[in-house]
Amino acid sequence: MAPAVLGINPAPSCGSAANINSHFAGETELSNSKFSQTLQTSMPSSAHQTRIVTDETTIDLETNGPALRAQHWVMNPPRPPGPWDELKNMVSETFLSHGEKFKALMKQPVSGTISMLGTLFPILVWGRDYTVAKFKRDLLAGLTLASLCIPQSIGYATLAKLDPQTVNLLHSDTSVVPPLIYAFMGTSREIGIGPVAVVSLLLSSMIQKLEDPEANPVAYTRLVLTVTFFAGLFQAAFGFLRLGFLVDFLSHAAIVGFMGGAAVVIGLQQLKGLLGLTHFTVKTDVVSVLEFIFKSVHSSWSPYNFILGSSFLTFLLITRFMGKRNRKIFWLPAIAPLISVILSTLIVFLTRADEHGVKIVKHIKGGLNPSSIHELQFDSPHAAEVAKIGLIVAVIALAEAIAVGRSFASFKGYHIDGNKEMVAIGFMNIVGSLTSCFAATGSFSRSAVNFSAGCETAMSNIVMAITVALSLELFTRLLYYTPIAILASIILSALPGLIDLNEAYNIWKVDKLDFLACIGAFLGVLFVSVEIGLLVAVMISFAKVLLNAIKPGIEDLGRFPGTDVFGEVNQYPMAIKTPGILTIRIKSALLCFANSNFIKERILKWVDDKEGDEDCTKGNAKGRPKLVILDMSSLMNIDTSGIASLEELHKKLMLHGTELAMANPRWQVIDKLRLANFVSKTGGRIFLTVGEAVDAFL
Amino acid sequence: MAPAVLGINPAPSCGSAANINSHFAGETELSNSKFSQTLQTSMPSSAHQTRIVTDETTIDLETNGPALRAQHWVMNPPRPPGPWDELKNMVSETFLSHGEKFKALMKQPVSGTISMLGTLFPILVWGRDYTVAKFKRDLLAGLTLASLCIPQSIGYATLAKLDPQTVNLLHSDTSVVPPLIYAFMGTSREIGIGPVAVVSLLLSSMIQKLEDPEANPVAYTRLVLTVTFFAGLFQAAFGFLRLGFLVDFLSHAAIVGFMGGAAVVIGLQQLKGLLGLTHFTVKTDVVSVLEFIFKSVHSSWSPYNFILGSSFLTFLLITRFMGKRNRKIFWLPAIAPLISVILSTLIVFLTRADEHGVKIVKHIKGGLNPSSIHELQFDSPHAAEVAKIGLIVAVIALAEAIAVGRSFASFKGYHIDGNKEMVAIGFMNIVGSLTSCFAATGSFSRSAVNFSAGCETAMSNIVMAITVALSLELFTRLLYYTPIAILASIILSALPGLIDLNEAYNIWKVDKLDFLACIGAFLGVLFVSVEIGLLVAVMISFAKVLLNAIKPGIEDLGRFPGTDVFGEVNQYPMAIKTPGILTIRIKSALLCFANSNFIKERILKWVDDKEGDEDCTKGNAKGRPKLVILDMSSLMNIDTSGIASLEELHKKLMLHGTELAMANPRWQVIDKLRLANFVSKTGGRIFLTVGEAVDAFL
Repeated sequence: MAPAVLGINPAPSCGSAANINSHFAGETELSNSKFSQTLQTSMPSSAHQTRIVTDETTIDLETNGPALRAQHWVMNPPRPPGPWDELKNMVSETFLSHGEKFKALMKQPVSGTISMLGTLFPILVWGRDYTVAKFKRDLLAGLTLASLCIPQSIGYATLAKLDPQTVNLLHSDTSVVPPLIYAFMGTSREIGIGPVAVVSLLLSSMIQKLEDPEANPVAYTRLVLTVTFFAGLFQAAFGFLRLGFLVDFLSHAAIVGFMGGAAVVIGLQQLKGLLGLTHFTVKTDVVSVLEFIFKSVHSSWSPYNFILGSSFLTFLLITRFMGKRNRKIFWLPAIAPLISVILSTLIVFLTRADEHGVKIVKHIKGGLNPSSIHELQFDSPHAAEVAKIGLIVAVIALAEAIAVGRSFASFKGYHIDGNKEMVAIGFMNIVGSLTSCFAATGSFSRSAVNFSAGCETAMSNIVMAITVALSLELFTRLLYYTPIAILASIILSALPGLIDLNEAYNIWKVDKLDFLACIGAFLGVLFVSVEIGLLVAVMISFAKVLLNAIKPGIEDLGRFPGTDVFGEVNQYPMAIKTPGILTIRIKSALLCFANSNFIKERILKWVDDKEGDEDCTKGNAKGRPKLVILDMSSLMNIDTSGIASLEELHKKLMLHGTELAMANPRWQVIDKLRLANFVSKTGGRIFLTVGEAVDAFL
Repeated sequence: MAPAVLGINPAPSCGSAANINSHFAGETELSNSKFSQTLQTSMPSSAHQTRIVTDETTIDLETNGPALRAQHWVMNPPRPPGPWDELKNMVSETFLSHGEKFKALMKQPVSGTISMLGTLFPILVWGRDYTVAKFKRDLLAGLTLASLCIPQSIGYATLAKLDPQTVNLLHSDTSVVPPLIYAFMGTSREIGIGPVAVVSLLLSSMIQKLEDPEANPVAYTRLVLTVTFFAGLFQAAFGFLRLGFLVDFLSHAAIVGFMGGAAVVIGLQQLKGLLGLTHFTVKTDVVSVLEFIFKSVHSSWSPYNFILGSSFLTFLLITRFMGKRNRKIFWLPAIAPLISVILSTLIVFLTRADEHGVKIVKHIKGGLNPSSIHELQFDSPHAAEVAKIGLIVAVIALAEAIAVGRSFASFKGYHIDGNKEMVAIGFMNIVGSLTSCFAATGSFSRSAVNFSAGCETAMSNIVMAITVALSLELFTRLLYYTPIAILASIILSALPGLIDLNEAYNIWKVDKLDFLACIGAFLGVLFVSVEIGLLVAVMISFAKVLLNAIKPGIEDLGRFPGTDVFGEVNQYPMAIKTPGILTIRIKSALLCFANSNFIKERILKWVDDKEGDEDCTKGNAKGRPKLVILDMSSLMNIDTSGIASLEELHKKLMLHGTELAMANPRWQVIDKLRLANFVSKTGGRIFLTVGEAVDAFL
């Protein structure tokens, strides 16, 4: 009875290949009659049989057996969307919203324009509800932010190797123009815009391979501006084309490792300022830098720089620590850099320490935002290289900004539109590159200060920008005596926040392979270069995905006592196996060239091993399992190699009198099996659930 | 009642970030009491409550509610194997079998040695049952095979650019030594061993970049032998280390495309012999070769070669076609090459056509298998390059041999041990490289002839090898007048079998992206080079796997009428959605950095879209769904980014009063969620099935 239920010829002959071959060939044509035979025997009454097969739409759901009905459902799904449909969907989803907005604009020019402007400039929306109370808080936050920004901006400009003495650029501009643009276009309320350490390091480490910043500062600065322009262009394009997901390709673990490595590298770069060295190596890896420092220390360093720098570094770290312990004095670490700059400048001015070897900033050209349109170089021999650097800078800057924006938005419970953010950040960098600014983005430390100071809207960025602009206009001459060692201390004091040992430990605890990506990025940045570190991290991340996707695996299922639900026997030791039946779930999402063969061999091995096994012989005569049920519910897709393997598996099982049934195939899988005529070859033994397949056999 | 069942504080406050933060922090500690609260409320009697939580092993399966019991099962799985365990397992699986065999050998030296020898040399096993009847069939098959091999071997030697006139090597040896070795060690009964077109092409196209075969044939031949040695070494190592799965990384589609491209390239190479050209370009891409041919045709070709070659090509193709139509005359295409060689040699000898421009083979040095140990070069400047070529040749040769072996074995219903096959093929190439043979493997065309001729065991290979050896010893001088155009015709006549348009169409029909890999390999081989074609195919194949693995997707589930089973509403239009509940299945196998953010955003969008939706408002007040059930059954694994996204999803849903429940998490997923404390944060609302989650809510 049982084999007949499953619609299989009992005892297939083990004869010559030609026989078997014709047997299979014949089965393809027989398939329809076999399917109906399956229906017939498993139905309570066989009266409806022909009606079901010939006229599928009139199947009577109420009077037929549930298993039969479910089988009918499985075997007759609508066609799933093909790759073209998916591509079309994706493209239309991307451009439809642009297109619809444009249509709306055409229909109702006035309200359409207003709504479009509101989308592009969110300030027009939140500006309507803006109150004096809100402005008071924003003012306070903006002023606190400005006191942090002025010294930081000069510091990061030196990190980007933009020397304030030689280049006709006012680098603190980067804290003026980009925040203004962002305030009009961005959707985050807390983000603090400006230059950040990692992006500045990326700029200098990659551009100085093309042009020496010390030998040829003008050409170097032009390259920096051009890279900034490209970065902005890429960022805006990502946003417009809704490619926000690209930023996600830097995994969390990779970012943690990369940031940690970058912090160490940035710290080492600050030894130039802290030790008062005149020259510095252009390499960024630990070995080269330490070697260089070791050599230099014997010849030309000045102890006064070091004493001054490390005293203020101690001061900065203490205020930082106090601010963390007691959240009420959050303003202390925020204004500590400004205090350090003022104090140290005074000390140098009063003691004339610059005559005893203490390096000072000297002349910074004042005035606001000279246009730098003519500085952009698109026809240089490095054009391709510059665009590549722009792309890397764009991605890293976006990753930081969006991570910052998202974490604060989720604190306050509002939504950030990743694509809109990208357009805003892209525009601010494009405009920045035309007004003498280098690449800016959302900074972790500034956003934290902004948030702690109680900002309400992006207005705090406007306040900050105006304050910085005014200060620079009025007080730049006062910065003449500021010691460079102080700028190094300010950067150094911000670095511990980038090294997140705690998170690294968490990653280790939860996922060992993720930790490998993390440590790979860290060591890559440390010992080779910033780009290599990034590349290593991205590659390990994707290798991990690939490994997980193709890792072949099957698992043994058992029935939960008293239910129709099946689970893996290792995960659920209480699950009970059915005698004479091997229920196997395929553990991969994709049955493809890379794993299908392995899975096939493993299943055959299990079937062989079960011969004489306790579970299978309990209710049966000794021997192999009579039925193998493949639970396909985890399988998202299958390729031609996978189908070939299933066919081979079916053949080999048949040769030894074991039958093959499948349960719960997904949409794409059942569709491809049908296209490859596999369904008809196996006589339609495909069930909705493992339970129904078992019941049909028993 | 319902929210209490789910163990969630109703109406979470939408206050400041600090509040929410502390709320979550508090919840972590509360988790245990919450879980017990969950248990309590959903239990029929609360008497067992403390007993369940404090002493998990004594839980009474019979008296508790089934949903509660299932939840207990889900929440308390054993620890899954970590990456170390998996690695350890893999290594021990690889070496255990070797180790156990060695132990058995130590214990019982005599029987152990016999069984070990039997494993290494299967001929000792099947040789015991060998009968005269079997030998008769093998003899016939071996003789048929030999008549095909002699002309083929010389042909493929010219394809590998081993010129019989200038090099002190008898290249037809490749049809003598390797088949003998294979017959003793291999597990396939039908495979026919010898040089094959694609491997010969690979050899010549890659080695001639290092050494010009025409200018320096001795050095070139040395490289060929060294590459063959390395290929054998790699193949044997793959087998011993059980790395058979590496061969699977060439997907079926990629092989179809690659073979097709290689066939066209090989065909173009034959134009040298067919047109009687003296020199030929070393490039293999279509454009270069056609350009070269076009130039040469104007200057130095000889029409007699072409007439002779194409007449016999027509003869060969006709016999091939006849053999396919009528399987009884399978021997006709098998001996047709030999007939062609004999006839054409006679024609040239009688007409003295060689004096009118017909190129002939001239002197082939007779004698058997000169040792070539001293020809191997390991200290050349090309050593690394040679090893790389050896690796590529090894993989391609194995892919062909194993594909051939498997298909015939599955016809006859016996098992081929991939790893043992690799060791056998590796050894035969190592020994081959020491006895003047170039890389050999299992050939499609020879195996088909062998099978059709009714071979029983690998003995047919021995018969073939001895026949070839004798013929070469006795008749080589007769080959002096054999025209080279005939060798080209013989190769050309075998090429149509390599271009499988039918299979390419099948691939197109079933899987469009697989077809892309196929056409990529084809075009890469055709227009760039053989290696690039392979690389393109492998890369497209893996990119496809990667795309499938991270392609973010969620699908809407509904309940099958009258059951507890849920299915995707698009695949099963008869599935019914539950009002007020959004049941979503994650469609990826991995919730990771590359897709978790997208999936999170998509779920939130669906929740927003459902506001006022028909399905959700049916049984409820207007508004958002009250509960989101995530079916995690497809999710094999999760990484730290994925967990972070789930946490964010949970937070955001809570802010709007929607709850989150999860159903059927897999072993690795639930374990990582527990490690990351996610389970305790959500208050343990994890169910075994979607149905139970829905029932708990209703």
